[in-house]
Order: sequence, then C-alpha cells, then structure tokens
Amino acid sequence: MNAVTPETTRVGIVGGGPAGLMLSHLLALAGIDSVVVEVRERAVIERTHRAGILERDSVRMLVDAGLDRVLRDGHEHRGIDLRFGGASHRVDFADLVGASTWLYPQTDVFLDLADARERDGGDVRWGVTDVEVSGVTRDPADRPVVAFTDAEGRRREVHCEVVVGSDGSRGTCRDLVPEASRRRSFREYPFAWFGILAQAPRTLDELVYARGPEGFVLVSSRTDEVQRMYVQCDPADRVEDWSDDRIWSTLQAGVAGDDGLALAEGPILERTVLPFRSFVQEPMRWGALVLAGDAAHTVPPTGAKGLNLALADVRVLAEALERTLLGDDADALDAYSARALERVWRTQHFSYWMTTLLHRLPGASAFDERRQLAELETLASSRAASTHLAECYTGWPTG
Amino acid sequence: MNAVTPETTRVGIVGGGPAGLMLSHLLALAGIDSVVVEVRERAVIERTHRAGILERDSVRMLVDAGLDRVLRDGHEHRGIDLRFGGASHRVDFADLVGASTWLYPQTDVFLDLADARERDGGDVRWGVTDVEVSGVTRDPADRPVVAFTDAEGRRREVHCEVVVGSDGSRGTCRDLVPEASRRRSFREYPFAWFGILAQAPRTLDELVYARGPEGFVLVSSRTDEVQRMYVQCDPADRVEDWSDDRIWSTLQAGVAGDDGLALAEGPILERTVLPFRSFVQEPMRWGALVLAGDAAHTVPPTGAKGLNLALADVRVLAEALERTLLGDDADALDAYSARALERVWRTQHFSYWMTTLLHRLPGASAFDERRQLAELETLASSRAASTHLAECYTGWPTG
Repeated sequence: MNAVTPETTRVGIVGGGPAGLMLSHLLALAGIDSVVVEVRERAVIERTHRAGILERDSVRMLVDAGLDRVLRDGHEHRGIDLRFGGASHRVDFADLVGASTWLYPQTDVFLDLADARERDGGDVRWGVTDVEVSGVTRDPADRPVVAFTDAEGRRREVHCEVVVGSDGSRGTCRDLVPEASRRRSFREYPFAWFGILAQAPRTLDELVYARGPEGFVLVSSRTDEVQRMYVQCDPADRVEDWSDDRIWSTLQAGVAGDDGLALAEGPILERTVLPFRSFVQEPMRWGALVLAGDAAHTVPPTGAKGLNLALADVRVLAEALERTLLGDDADALDAYSARALERVWRTQHFSYWMTTLLHRLPGASAFDERRQLAELETLASSRAASTHLAECYTGWPTG
Repeated sequence: MNAVTPETTRVGIVGGGPAGLMLSHLLALAGIDSVVVEVRERAVIERTHRAGILERDSVRMLVDAGLDRVLRDGHEHRGIDLRFGGASHRVDFADLVGASTWLYPQTDVFLDLADARERDGGDVRWGVTDVEVSGVTRDPADRPVVAFTDAEGRRREVHCEVVVGSDGSRGTCRDLVPEASRRRSFREYPFAWFGILAQAPRTLDELVYARGPEGFVLVSSRTDEVQRMYVQCDPADRVEDWSDDRIWSTLQAGVAGDDGLALAEGPILERTVLPFRSFVQEPMRWGALVLAGDAAHTVPPTGAKGLNLALADVRVLAEALERTLLGDDADALDAYSARALERVWRTQHFSYWMTTLLHRLPGASAFDERRQLAELETLASSRAASTHLAECYTGWPTG
C-alpha cells in the first residue's frame, strides 16, 4: 500500500474543462487557493474540437479575466440568418438588442484558460485516475476530501472546505447527493444532429439556422478553410449511415432559398452524431459540494447555450465562494444554487423552444407542420418576437 | 310536389351568425345584394349566451360599419392579469402596443348585426330547414343554388353568383369541396374547459389568465352581477362531475397569489364543458364557394380568437367580393383564400401557444412542468416577449 500525501486547499475542483478552469482562475484573482483535478491529459482536450458561440457576457467575462484573445481570433456575429419556407430572414442582434455573439470554439476557451492557469502558477493536475470524493455530507461544515492517483502514479488526498463538481455531463460528482436530497428532471428528444467538419471555404459570415424539408440545418464555421455544419438525424443513426451525397444534398436543400444560396462543398474531415437531451439536477449545492456547468445540467445544442450556461454558473459561483470563504457568509452557496437555477431553467426553455421551432418532429401531423411554419413566420415578421429571440440568444444579464 | 319559387341574388350566404350577418351588412353598404339563410330562429341565437373578447380591429370594424353600441356597453381592457407561481404579472397592452381589447359578448355582436340587417331591409331567412347547396363545381363561372324550406314551409331556391359557407364548425358547406381538392388539418387536445356563469359581483376589472396548481383558469365577466369563469378539465368530464365546492376551490387555488386575491363567489347559473380542437380546411375558396369563420377553421378558446378570426375573414372577403362582383377581378377570391389563411395559421399558432403556456398537460414530466414555468417567467420578465403576446392578443393589422 502506497503512502498517501495529504494536502490542503480551500476549494477542490473536480473537472478541468472551461467551467473548472475559469472558476480556478477567478478564485486565484480573488486570492483563494484551489486545486483542479482532471482525468484527461491537457493535450487530449486540446485536440478535441468543440464548437462554440459565446454570448455577450461570456466574452466580457473572458476579457475581464484578462483573456482577450477572443477579440482578435474570434468572429463577431451581429445576427443570424433564419431560413424557412425558401426565404432568408436576418435576425439583426445589433439592431434589436445592441448586442453580438462571438464565434470562438470551446477548444480555444479551454486553451486560453489552461495557458492562464499555467502562467499564473495555478494548481491543475492533468491525467489523474481513480478520483474519489469523500466526506460530503448534509453538513456544509464537514470537510470533503478529493482523492486521486496522479499522473506519476502516486495516490494523493486533497482536503478542502468546498468541493466543486465541474466534471461534465458524464461526471459522478452529482451522484454524491443522495437521491432523497436531489431532484433530477430530464427530457429525451426524438432526433439528434449529424455534424461534419468540411474542408471548404466559408459561404456566409454569420450562422444559418434553417428549417429545411428534412428538418433542422445549422451552418457554422471553424476557420476560413474549415466549415462546421449540422443536419437533423435520427438518434439511432451511425456515421456510416450517411453518404457524402446524402449529407450535402440535405444541407443544400435545407438552406435553399429564393436568394439562390448554395454552400461551398469540400472533403468531409470529421463526422459525428450529437445526442440531444435536457437534464437538470437540483439543488446545485448540497453540504460542502456545489455543481457547476454540465455536471448539473445538459441542454440540447440548439441555441448554443451549453458553454455559456457553464460560464454563467461560474460567474455566480465565484462570487458566492468569495462571500463564503472570505466574508464568512454561510448562506452564499445556497443563494448560488437559487440564482444559477433561475438562469438554467430559462436556458432550458430557450433551448427547447429553438429546438421545437426548427426541427422536424417525427410523426408530426399536417397541423403541427403548418403551425410550426406559422410560428416562424410570426417570429420573423414581428420586431417584438425577433427582439425576444435576440435577447435570449445573445444572453440575459447575470441575475 | 310543391312548386319552387326561384329567386336570384348575387351572394348566397349560408349561416346567419356574426360572420354571415357582418358580410351581408358590408355587402349591402357596397350595394351588393345577398340572401342569408339560417337554420336557427333569431330568438334562439339571442338566448344563447356566448362570451367575447374583441380585438382592436374587430371593434373598429363594428364602429366603421355603424354599429357603435360596443363603445357604450362594452368594457375596454387595457391589459390582462397573468398569474402563475403565486404571483400576478400584468401585461399592459396600452403601454406595450398602444392597443386595447373589449369585453363584448358574441351574443351582443349578433344582436347588433341582426338589428342592423332588419333596419336596413336586409334579406335574412331565419329558421329555415333542409338547406341544400348545389351547382358548386371547380368552375367559378358555374352558378350555385341555395335551396331550403322557409319558416312557412315553402321550398325555395336562391340562384347566386357566389355562395358563402359561414355555417360554423358543424356546418356542411365545407364538405362541398371534394376530398381531392381540400386539405384538412386538425389537432385534438387532452383537456377541455369547464365553464360557469355565477351570480356574483365582479372581482377584477380585467381578465385573469392563470396557470394554477390544477392547470388553466380564466376569470372573465358578463355583467356587473354575473361572472364567467373557466377551469381546465378532462374532455370526458360531464357537468355533473364537478360539485360547486370543487369548482370554487379549483378557481380560488388557480388565482391565489401573494396579493391575497379571492374571487367573489355566488350561485352557479350555468355550467358547460367546452371542447378543444384546432381545425383548418384549405383552400377557403373552391369554384364559386368561399368559406368564412368557423366553417373553415376552429381554434381552441385560449386567447379568444374564434370570433375575431371570423370577422377578419369577413373584412378580407367583403373587399374581395366587391372586386369580383363590381370590378370583375376574377382572381380576387383566390387572393381572399391566401390572405385569410395567413392570419388563420398565425392565429392557430397563437391559440396553440397560449394553450400550451397555461394548461397542465396530463402526463407531463417534472422537466416539462418546470420548463413551462420558466417560459412564463421569461415572458413576464421580458418587455419584448410581453409585447409579442400583447400584439398577438390585441390582434394583428389586416394583411
């Protein structure tokens, strides 16, 4: 049996994705020590390409934290192109709500944060195994322990005052809350997204959200030379079920309109099937454990809220941890749960709405299909309704 | 065999409800003769109490047609009280969109129109039987014939250039369009409304739309002394399934809030179960037949659009008939169908949205229930979203 070296920190953070790293970064700025443990190697996360549209306040948060590469390498989007019934309807965020979103992949947000933690001497343990959190009880005064085997094979124990579960949608921290003390809500959807990366020039500067003949289509971009696109598919589809021809013809039909839009095509570099699910665990605090980001909630990808919601959690959580650990305000973490959940549920509604607005529902009646088109027509022709969409999409202020 | 007296008119109108009478009235103002046939006696319709909330343009239409009793006997509503989660949220139509609605029962709209037709010498045949429309073919030049037995028992035949089916949701004119030439879309809902008239003073000046613990509640008014209220019920419920206690406790719980609102109670004068259905038949013109109002479409009662949509049809139809019959514009009636259907589908969407927003869906998951509450919270806290609701509720301008 190996000797275990006990360590202490104020906040133990399980999960080194954008939520965990951003929290660690903000706590450091406030003079609060933390240790982040992450089962993946940093290089593995860097090589995992993940898309990202940042809300106004997510960009502001990065910039305020000294991470301003988004302003140079990101692409500001002042609107989206909403397509249905063979016509294009631009939703002009800048005009409607005076806000923009930024195309800046989650992978880059991760890189910026990982670099910043390294530069600032932040304590992040990559590539750990056998993470076990213990000592979480109903009593917030009980000190939790985060145990793990480090990349060198040594068993370690970090004793902390608060443990943060930011270990994502497949994480286990949320299971530390006993069944009787938690409520889980979820919804399955009868579709998924078939996503590709294609070696092709950018066709349009902004995102296209379309309700095409086969359902949902999203046209986004990774770089000037590599484009990211999605079409609605069956959740049981495998990547090999879709030929290149089928992919391109579904995409082209989806965006086709009276303006003759045709997407530039090219070799397909990557194919994935993205699952669709809504999930929430409440409360987001139990004893000395708090949950943040995907560890507490999953939204379907329509509306691009996952990363933004995780960052919004962290914005509220960092403030609550400061009040708890520096100001001795014992109720601050409960207030975190209530404040964060208000935004979580609004975001769940928005993501559900964008999903039902733009997808073909298997088994929909003629009435349902025609009503959906009328909803899109009403939305596109009403400044008030478009403004509501724009304010949801660009993000609510932190409540 | 009785001798049949053939008569001629330009427009034969089957159905003497508000749609048929308003059309006949507007045509008369334009110098176009019509004959209205109605199977009910006028006195029977007058004794059938039907609620009514009039959109801004429905009121304008009545007033422009010389029927201004609504301005004296109706009640202007400058907003609604939206209640959920124990709180009241006023949607202030006047502030948001500079418009009002008017509480003015459909029965009064009928009375005003029936009086006007009588005063102006309009040709309305009440209490007819065995109405048969013949001669409607694909060719709009073929002249239809409306045959019926009049109140005196004489068989009659009215030859006309156009026949209008305004015979309501149980009418048969729509069946004159062959199956291959029509599209019917419909949706059933897993709930209905239990409606009462109660002898009680008015509690609030404006309508209350509530999402209570048992689902939808609507509090309206008929007079200062008689109130009209609805609670969500099962479509299979019969009036005898609901005791007075159950009715009042469901109503009171539905509107209960932190302002301590309690409805004034009193003897229940009338009880009905209102069915819920969405239905549309397209197109609304085939050959020399046009459909208007409930004969072409049914909306669920949430949002009070049925009568308003019928009057909007008639607004567009009267203009189209003038162009056809006075201006010889053969395409005007096709344009009627397209123009009317655009509003029909928007209204179907709005009625569906208001329904799903406020009703308890049997079998809804915890996720669905919480998402619905978040939708209400987002709506009430967003000026843009409230403005959208207000513009839909007070009515779009005629397109």
